[in-house]
Amino acid sequence: MGFSLMPKGKDFFKLFDKQASLAVEAARFFIELCQSGKFDDANIQKMRDIEHEGDIFTHEIIDTLNRTFITPFDREDIHALTSELDDVVDLIHSITTRMRLYRLTAPDPHLMQFADIIEQSARALAKAINGLKEIDRPRPILDYCIEINRLENVGDQIRENAIGNLFENSTDPVSIIKWKEIYEVAEVVLDKCEDVANIVESIIVKQG
Amino acid sequence: MGFSLMPKGKDFFKLFDKQASLAVEAARFFIELCQSGKFDDANIQKMRDIEHEGDIFTHEIIDTLNRTFITPFDREDIHALTSELDDVVDLIHSITTRMRLYRLTAPDPHLMQFADIIEQSARALAKAINGLKEIDRPRPILDYCIEINRLENVGDQIRENAIGNLFENSTDPVSIIKWKEIYEVAEVVLDKCEDVANIVESIIVKQG
Amino acid sequence: MGFSLMPKGKDFFKLFDKQASLAVEAARFFIELCQSGKFDDANIQKMRDIEHEGDIFTHEIIDTLNRTFITPFDREDIHALTSELDDVVDLIHSITTRMRLYRLTAPDPHLMQFADIIEQSARALAKAINGLKEIDRPRPILDYCIEINRLENVGDQIRENAIGNLFENSTDPVSIIKWKEIYEVAEVVLDKCEDVANIVESIIVKQG
Repeated sequence: MGFSLMPKGKDFFKLFDKQASLAVEAARFFIELCQSGKFDDANIQKMRDIEHEGDIFTHEIIDTLNRTFITPFDREDIHALTSELDDVVDLIHSITTRMRLYRLTAPDPHLMQFADIIEQSARALAKAINGLKEIDRPRPILDYCIEINRLENVGDQIRENAIGNLFENSTDPVSIIKWKEIYEVAEVVLDKCEDVANIVESIIVKQG
Repeated sequence: MGFSLMPKGKDFFKLFDKQASLAVEAARFFIELCQSGKFDDANIQKMRDIEHEGDIFTHEIIDTLNRTFITPFDREDIHALTSELDDVVDLIHSITTRMRLYRLTAPDPHLMQFADIIEQSARALAKAINGLKEIDRPRPILDYCIEINRLENVGDQIRENAIGNLFENSTDPVSIIKWKEIYEVAEVVLDKCEDVANIVESIIVKQG
Repeated sequence: MGFSLMPKGKDFFKLFDKQASLAVEAARFFIELCQSGKFDDANIQKMRDIEHEGDIFTHEIIDTLNRTFITPFDREDIHALTSELDDVVDLIHSITTRMRLYRLTAPDPHLMQFADIIEQSARALAKAINGLKEIDRPRPILDYCIEINRLENVGDQIRENAIGNLFENSTDPVSIIKWKEIYEVAEVVLDKCEDVANIVESIIVKQG
């Protein structure tokens, strides 16, 4: 394989933008699914396609890394950023398959709240990552990171309400097991967005 | 923002000491709550105040990092140390809110054992971190790390006993779901203390 | 303690090989246990011995690291590799103790499938790690890493089938709680093998 001495900054930024916009796409499609309650085979397949496309971008980023001598920031950070960003899409895919697995079809107001916050967080993430190409202007990037942290706190609160409600109103232990897990995975999506934001912050710290 | 060329070792050590002593404070208050069983609004608020103070120290450490050119050890390690230490306090806060959420008020002997071990581990952690300012004398620091590892093993055993007991004596699945989670989060606090100890060890390794 | 300036490459590779072959041993013994269903005191003790031997290798690797000036790859990667590899053995031990704790003795076809895939993944891991001593020939190492990733996907599918089956056919919530956790920990073993493979890949990336 060819090995380039030329800085590949542009390539990385383009690929990261694509990967981040896929997270936004997954989050948007998840809202649709929550609204319709149609966690059926066709829609699961569509979410799987998004997830699979994400895997392809991840491999492309790592391949570019292997063929590039001068990178726009630390090799390890590029590796971490792409794999954690991939996790965001994987986790949204994973709630979807679990809804199907547990035969949950009724729209749930708590899950709708989660879907909304996840989409906001994915959008802020895409903007933070887009900002990395102008790393000498760190302020707007850091503001998006702060916003992602705030949304993670909102998610914590939604989970507390959702689970409190579940234990108070449900008498069926099997239903408690299912929904508790759904809410928890939804909250982990927001944690993962925060992890990506933390990597972005640490990239800025190192440049600082 | 001003950018200092002067080594900020003292500042970091002071801030880390404060952050670690907050973990001890949270652990001590958690013992009190377990003894009284009063997981009520006022006490939840008090624990939240401790957690919030922890967040402030974390941000102060990261801000100091951004304004400092020469750091006492790797920038990434300072970042990791403060965020993992913050997780210890977050997790103690998180058991507390869950006790409230699940309306668990009766004192439980297994949880009391956990509270005791968590406090011992937080104290050892505070001493290990305090030792970092004399990193050329690594032996006592490493001994505290070994102690934290030992306490994590004790915690594993408490969890095994607690969960074994739960499944043998409880016939209510909902109660099993609640207590199983409480015990598991308590064990994760000890895992997280061990993670901090591992970062401390790796800081020593790098200086070695 | 003595501090050697001589490259200790050979020592590390030998220790890593031993640690990886211990993961294979744990995986093989786990298959035996799943076939016989004999999760009894004697066998739990035997698995604990394997896990304990793993801890000793981990400490030996870290001690060697502390006494070595020139290492075959980054100090931090050696640290990460040994501790994540240790986690693989810990997790296999952990499913075993949980089977005992939950008094599960009947052979289960889904767990048998997991045991088989875990053993394949541990073998591929041992080969990938063995390959690190010839890091200038990265292709076969990367192929083992790809295989480990593939096996993790297979594990995901086994878990989906196992848990779907559990919720469809079991009417006992306590049994659902137990088996769901067993399947999930089994899947985490495969995730952890993948984490080790990712460290191996990133070691190769850095050398590239």
